[in-house]
Amino acid sequence: MPDLIRGLGASPANPGAAPPRLPFSRVTQEVLAFFRTLLPGRTITDPDLLKSSNVDWLKTVEGNSEVLLRPKTTEEVSQILRHCSERNLAVCPQGGNTGLVGGSVPVFDEIILSTSLMNQVITFDNISGILTCQAGCVLENLSNYLEERDFIMPLDLGAKGSCHIGGNVSTNAGGLRLLRYGSLRGTVLGLEVVLADGRILKCLATLRKDNTGYDLKQLFIGSEGTLGVITAVSILCPRKPKAVNVAFLGCSSFQQLLETFQYCRGMLGEILSAFEFLDASCMSLLEKHLKLTNPITESPFYIVIETAGSNATHDEEKLHQFLEEVMTSSLVTDGTVATEATKIKALWSLRERVTEALTHEGYTYKYDISLPVEKIYDLVQDMRGHLGDMAKNVVGYGHVGDGNLHLNITSPSKDPALLAAIEPYVYEWTSEWKGSISAEHGLGLKKRNYIYYSKPSEAVALMGSIKAMLDPKGILNPYKTLPDNIH
Amino acid sequence: MPDLIRGLGASPANPGAAPPRLPFSRVTQEVLAFFRTLLPGRTITDPDLLKSSNVDWLKTVEGNSEVLLRPKTTEEVSQILRHCSERNLAVCPQGGNTGLVGGSVPVFDEIILSTSLMNQVITFDNISGILTCQAGCVLENLSNYLEERDFIMPLDLGAKGSCHIGGNVSTNAGGLRLLRYGSLRGTVLGLEVVLADGRILKCLATLRKDNTGYDLKQLFIGSEGTLGVITAVSILCPRKPKAVNVAFLGCSSFQQLLETFQYCRGMLGEILSAFEFLDASCMSLLEKHLKLTNPITESPFYIVIETAGSNATHDEEKLHQFLEEVMTSSLVTDGTVATEATKIKALWSLRERVTEALTHEGYTYKYDISLPVEKIYDLVQDMRGHLGDMAKNVVGYGHVGDGNLHLNITSPSKDPALLAAIEPYVYEWTSEWKGSISAEHGLGLKKRNYIYYSKPSEAVALMGSIKAMLDPKGILNPYKTLPDNIH
Repeated sequence: MPDLIRGLGASPANPGAAPPRLPFSRVTQEVLAFFRTLLPGRTITDPDLLKSSNVDWLKTVEGNSEVLLRPKTTEEVSQILRHCSERNLAVCPQGGNTGLVGGSVPVFDEIILSTSLMNQVITFDNISGILTCQAGCVLENLSNYLEERDFIMPLDLGAKGSCHIGGNVSTNAGGLRLLRYGSLRGTVLGLEVVLADGRILKCLATLRKDNTGYDLKQLFIGSEGTLGVITAVSILCPRKPKAVNVAFLGCSSFQQLLETFQYCRGMLGEILSAFEFLDASCMSLLEKHLKLTNPITESPFYIVIETAGSNATHDEEKLHQFLEEVMTSSLVTDGTVATEATKIKALWSLRERVTEALTHEGYTYKYDISLPVEKIYDLVQDMRGHLGDMAKNVVGYGHVGDGNLHLNITSPSKDPALLAAIEPYVYEWTSEWKGSISAEHGLGLKKRNYIYYSKPSEAVALMGSIKAMLDPKGILNPYKTLPDNIH
Repeated sequence: MPDLIRGLGASPANPGAAPPRLPFSRVTQEVLAFFRTLLPGRTITDPDLLKSSNVDWLKTVEGNSEVLLRPKTTEEVSQILRHCSERNLAVCPQGGNTGLVGGSVPVFDEIILSTSLMNQVITFDNISGILTCQAGCVLENLSNYLEERDFIMPLDLGAKGSCHIGGNVSTNAGGLRLLRYGSLRGTVLGLEVVLADGRILKCLATLRKDNTGYDLKQLFIGSEGTLGVITAVSILCPRKPKAVNVAFLGCSSFQQLLETFQYCRGMLGEILSAFEFLDASCMSLLEKHLKLTNPITESPFYIVIETAGSNATHDEEKLHQFLEEVMTSSLVTDGTVATEATKIKALWSLRERVTEALTHEGYTYKYDISLPVEKIYDLVQDMRGHLGDMAKNVVGYGHVGDGNLHLNITSPSKDPALLAAIEPYVYEWTSEWKGSISAEHGLGLKKRNYIYYSKPSEAVALMGSIKAMLDPKGILNPYKTLPDNIH
């Protein structure tokens, strides 16, 4: 396990580290007794059982919580938060714990409130495609549930086997289908949320349109559990497409990849459901650590294109015309197409498993950047030149269709000199091009102090006011999302 | 002109009326002098010129403002609001003044802040399709600007010739393309907003993804100018489709219309861009008042279906197969299809001009209801039975694809007895089916006190806290959106 961030105290030299512990109360025997009565058998204090909930998926942030609560109902969450609010106890809400910015694990001894037993589908309407479920449903389970009913989830991401829909909504997860179905801000129709003081906000509407007052649910989408705990979600699900095709293509330059994207948008139009990329360095890591096979000729860049439509013949015709165009104009050097589920899955895994392959390289410095699409790979190349031999790998992959680059820099172990060469350089570069320093991962613990690179002071101050209004004691996911200093 | 709502004082019998005037300051000569220096020639006090800004489009709500300000820049808006905030002067922000709930006109003597001269496109990126413009741009002008560049606006509505994009965003306008491109909560990427005290919030991002802190722009989408004045918008625009087809069909029952909708979603899939309906009563009014011609055999229900796609041959094939299916199964009794722009426009006007036709009937009681789609016409039929001869017309039209019914009830003139028979009956009915009492029109002045039919008290209380945080003096669009009593 690499070095961990553990209550180090943030400093100008290390703004991603944890700040000093705030003066929350400690969990007492009386508090534990209350929880054990409320949640018999679901109040976990065994350190071995707590271990995995205290550490993030990347094993880079570790907390020291002594109690993990596993409520099953909204009412139980409400009672937990009322108790914690009255006693000034800090709480870390946790879904599948697959976040990449240290947002889902405690920093010190926050009580972990896990949604893992809140995993029931409440209703599904197969006319409207509206699903209502508890927050702890695993994304892949929901996908399977819907596919049996001829629908799909409007989002999909690599962590689907573990992540919870509540966590997806809390972090405004993007993923692989955003290009087609838009963000959760549009597809989430309603939320049930427990506020810091235990009040239950029932805004679990199942309507496509509702303009009655302020849209409160938006406050809880993407606020990383700092304003309330999402306990149930209603979400609009698209029909399962009748035909899905995946093409895996190679390009010899990023410029050619961008031109391919332009052709793709014009010729595939409304059936385009994903346009993703990885570079040659990602492919090497997939081959090296996961023993995956590159299905085409080696290229500097690889593209995954997915189409999803209602007429297989039409879709294949569009895809064929597109491929002919980009092959004859030499924009694409080689490629393969899959229409069969197993092969589709195999091609997708080349894109989806890059994050996993990187974890085998030692320590990974991860950046999730939004930029104008024509700039996204310049940052990777610039960073390679800037870091030289200091970094083991500098790789780029991500969502071309969304202008979203995942820049990853690896090193055999945690390396403060390397970090100092990357940051704030990467943030300054992004800010100069009016990009976002966190496109879809959120800010969590690791990125909170960099918010000013993407948001003006007035905006951050207003965020602080919202936090103070909804969680005046600051007990919900402290040390996350908002910077240590609001100025 | 029918009877107007003019500072009547809301009562349990008339909750849609205006409450008593709040103790805001009056506009003094000193205030006027300040405005005249700031906005020379753009500080309007001539009562004749003020007339049209004091009355809503439906001519049902009239204020008595004595000054209309026409700023050109965000800085001017900021100075206006700072001045008003310091002096406790109430302000009514106004776009194209096409709202249907009395949200865009003053109730008493609020200063009218018009965005009509803030009509400049700031940037347009023809790779990403991201448009940034001032809030006062007229929707149709933006549509024309984009069409010349091979893009379209993600929203379209009957009032496009007058409504402003800032007003569209402030009211979270839905309209005719929501089914395809989703709501403004997803397509609006950034906003610039002036807060009540004059502070400028610059969140005019042009990125598809940005998860750095709370998404503040959502607070201003749909809050009807009560939390801030939107001065600029950036919005993601889809490519102009290569092929557009419109079909106008007749159905003999609403059940058959719903079955047609199910076939349509399955067979047209991703190319479906609108599924709208009107009933036979609407058609009669179009013929009577606007001299429009019904292009098909008389039917109890009419459907407008639009497809928009990237391949004309494929789209026509899909549409043809769909029409054959619904004609042979007798779901549809008659129909006509248009591919040529003039004919498309003519067919669309049958749906778009219903609102206008209704204004010729005398007084119209307008309801904009979201319901599960299979219930939407039950409300119209139930209301006809309930009202009997009291109403001149009870008509239904709207967005089937969004479960959104426009229920309109006409009367030769304003009729308190009729109103008492409609309300709260219509709201209770809607609430019973967990619908929304305002799907896309907002609450404005007329519907504010009915919010509890669609939102729980806890939610309304939180809305009140947000209002108090952002506009502690309550100067921004008072008497609108939030109910008179927050309990």
